[in-house]
Amino acid sequence: MNVDVLFNPNSVAIIGASRDPGKIGHVLVRNFIEGGFRGPIYPINPKCTEILDLKCYPSVKDVKGGVDLAVIAIPAKFVPGELKECGEKGVKGAIVISGGFSEVGNVDLENQLREVCNKYDIACLGPNCMGVINPLTRVDSVFIPTYKMGRPKLGAVSFISQSGAIGGAVLDLMARQGFGMSKFVSYGNGAVLDETDLIRYIADDDKTRIIVLYIEGVRRGREFFETLKEVTKKKPVVVLKGGKTAGGAAATKSHTGSLAGNAAVYEAVFKQCKATEARNLDEIFNFSKLFESQPFCSGERVGIITNGGGLAVIATDSVEENGLKIAELSEESRKKISENAPAYVNVKNPLDLSGDAGADRFGVAVNVMLDDPNVDAILVGVLFQTENIDSRVVSLLVEASNLKKKPMLVVCPGGEYAEVHSRILENCGVPTYTSSNYAIKALSKLVDYSKFVNKK
Amino acid sequence: MNVDVLFNPNSVAIIGASRDPGKIGHVLVRNFIEGGFRGPIYPINPKCTEILDLKCYPSVKDVKGGVDLAVIAIPAKFVPGELKECGEKGVKGAIVISGGFSEVGNVDLENQLREVCNKYDIACLGPNCMGVINPLTRVDSVFIPTYKMGRPKLGAVSFISQSGAIGGAVLDLMARQGFGMSKFVSYGNGAVLDETDLIRYIADDDKTRIIVLYIEGVRRGREFFETLKEVTKKKPVVVLKGGKTAGGAAATKSHTGSLAGNAAVYEAVFKQCKATEARNLDEIFNFSKLFESQPFCSGERVGIITNGGGLAVIATDSVEENGLKIAELSEESRKKISENAPAYVNVKNPLDLSGDAGADRFGVAVNVMLDDPNVDAILVGVLFQTENIDSRVVSLLVEASNLKKKPMLVVCPGGEYAEVHSRILENCGVPTYTSSNYAIKALSKLVDYSKFVNKK
Repeated sequence: MNVDVLFNPNSVAIIGASRDPGKIGHVLVRNFIEGGFRGPIYPINPKCTEILDLKCYPSVKDVKGGVDLAVIAIPAKFVPGELKECGEKGVKGAIVISGGFSEVGNVDLENQLREVCNKYDIACLGPNCMGVINPLTRVDSVFIPTYKMGRPKLGAVSFISQSGAIGGAVLDLMARQGFGMSKFVSYGNGAVLDETDLIRYIADDDKTRIIVLYIEGVRRGREFFETLKEVTKKKPVVVLKGGKTAGGAAATKSHTGSLAGNAAVYEAVFKQCKATEARNLDEIFNFSKLFESQPFCSGERVGIITNGGGLAVIATDSVEENGLKIAELSEESRKKISENAPAYVNVKNPLDLSGDAGADRFGVAVNVMLDDPNVDAILVGVLFQTENIDSRVVSLLVEASNLKKKPMLVVCPGGEYAEVHSRILENCGVPTYTSSNYAIKALSKLVDYSKFVNKK
Repeated sequence: MNVDVLFNPNSVAIIGASRDPGKIGHVLVRNFIEGGFRGPIYPINPKCTEILDLKCYPSVKDVKGGVDLAVIAIPAKFVPGELKECGEKGVKGAIVISGGFSEVGNVDLENQLREVCNKYDIACLGPNCMGVINPLTRVDSVFIPTYKMGRPKLGAVSFISQSGAIGGAVLDLMARQGFGMSKFVSYGNGAVLDETDLIRYIADDDKTRIIVLYIEGVRRGREFFETLKEVTKKKPVVVLKGGKTAGGAAATKSHTGSLAGNAAVYEAVFKQCKATEARNLDEIFNFSKLFESQPFCSGERVGIITNGGGLAVIATDSVEENGLKIAELSEESRKKISENAPAYVNVKNPLDLSGDAGADRFGVAVNVMLDDPNVDAILVGVLFQTENIDSRVVSLLVEASNLKKKPMLVVCPGGEYAEVHSRILENCGVPTYTSSNYAIKALSKLVDYSKFVNKK
């Protein structure tokens, strides 16, 4: 099956296109037009002749040119019939948005859908899914208006989500945080293409550097885990498993109609596969933004630089709690820092530059630690509220991070003023966190994966 | 000593007041004026005659009227001398902002400071601290300009922080999140008044319903813990302990000059004292906003309502992972929900109302669960991105929460659109979270404390 056509079609038909702005079939057409999809867009609806200035066709078979991809948003019972028409037309890929299949007990209908797709060799996502976003080719089958849910900018993280809800929330957060995405795919019930097919495709996608996965159940267990094991040799995979507890597992059955399996088994297998397990939505971000933006880590010795004593204390606790080590600064480093700081700054690691530190003191400390062979990664805790901190600190952190010498993470707790600065840092590829222990936990995951990469 | 005068003075002298807008002594005067402090403000500086239109005095002794509180921001070595003048003038409280005492090894100077305060019975905060904010009387000795660090609105949470950095970050976050504060106090080195004195004062403050504590070390261990044990009988205490690991403990020595002690000891004692331990800054918020806004909990059975299947799955996992239980809905509840939802909604707990749910479906579910005796607390997961969710959902959640029948928490992951709505919820006293496991972890803490309260 041609999975690629889902992400890179030359033309798209929207089956169930609507003139009613409240309908999914309308939002889909609008999103393809406004997103700037470059090929022809064919709305399909026997009751209309025109939707949003585009000619509307009674059936996909009435379209004159070829149709690569069909996005289907019609009542469930009509879906297999429409897929048959798509097959006859030569459509290669289909995204079935419609729900009402195995997740509500209609297993027969889902089997019919699968049979049609197999017969006509249609690469099919769903049913009961949100489908695809590819910011490069502007495919956007997510039926949520852009004013309610932002679309991430182009980047290197691809996200495969069984759940549409989780997928949508993550997309929206990615957009909000200025996170760059390569491909998004929500596969819902996975009647035809499942997590294994999709992870294989994304693993070979040279625009994707990090894969994020949300799964509830896995259809072909052995194949999935063998694939995962191969994929992590090429690129990091961050995975969140829903339905790990007994109750959660029961809940997945009525959600995507899949069996969730045993928590301990999944945890052990993820570990064995070198996949990085996230425990919640926030950890997906905390981990993947670090993997995406920072170089691999040569070891586990952390240098801490801050302008707040309490921050230094908490960050140090975090380092030890997460199994990392506080770096011992070299003699040379200590000397250079001392020469450029007032006498009351206690030059050691964690390095508390004191509440009156400004860009100059931070600049020396960051660059010294970047060059110190005893330091493998740097955590910078900036209290933007203090008197001498200004946007020059942002600039120097961006410049230091751009050198890609070592992983560097920034913790900047606070309100609006801190947020404005951390947003700029994020947009420039410097990962920021509100708490040092979220930062250090993410770093510990990067250290683990780096060990695996360095061993190869 | 008159601790109350630090929070409720009738007049204030600012020793080290300055005309230079970049100086702490200037920001202090400005913050008292702009904050709206109702009594007289006396800038003290022998080199000026006027600061920000206020008459400036060479010495505190030159002030004609009485002075209740002195805020001191001058080089460390001059502090004991100024305190002596304050004592002779009859000043009852002092906040020593200046650093340069035991935290940098100047133990003698700190001893001198303590002796003067004891001799003249001056209730003294610091040195090396940020002092006090009381939004009611508009005392504000935090020397950070308001454009860099917001001030929280008046409310019921009081925050005692050893560290100024942590204190400032938390204040700023409180302001940003629309969190209401009763009193803030940062006590730095705690040379005169320490954590035990302050927690005793705040425990008796009838405007404070929740106490949040950040400590690194404790001076009078036994007294502190005996006090804490008494205080938690009156109101909940959320505590974050910095310097729990060996490295973190070493870092505290050069920060506030205190000894941090053993992690396991602290954890055990907090548990014994029924204080709620937070592991990081975010948990302080996650926990205390729930304690502040929601009623105590009658049990541990959680009802989950959502419009996203994946959210229901993850929330259910969170409930079990945090030792709570998924409630079994009553026959009557299930009937009422069924009558008001389409056939494809699977009526059980967790309750996935489906992606097309709107305010009506949510309204029925929330109110049914509020009345169901089998449900002790409610988690509502709202994907604001979906088609039928609008601000009516916000209104019904606020109204349901206002009934104060049971704890209700809202999870709304997402970007700008979700944030706008969650901000409104927060401002109306409905605690919101980005991840269900942060919400459920907070709920588990409320359940624990409620058990303790219910037993009494």
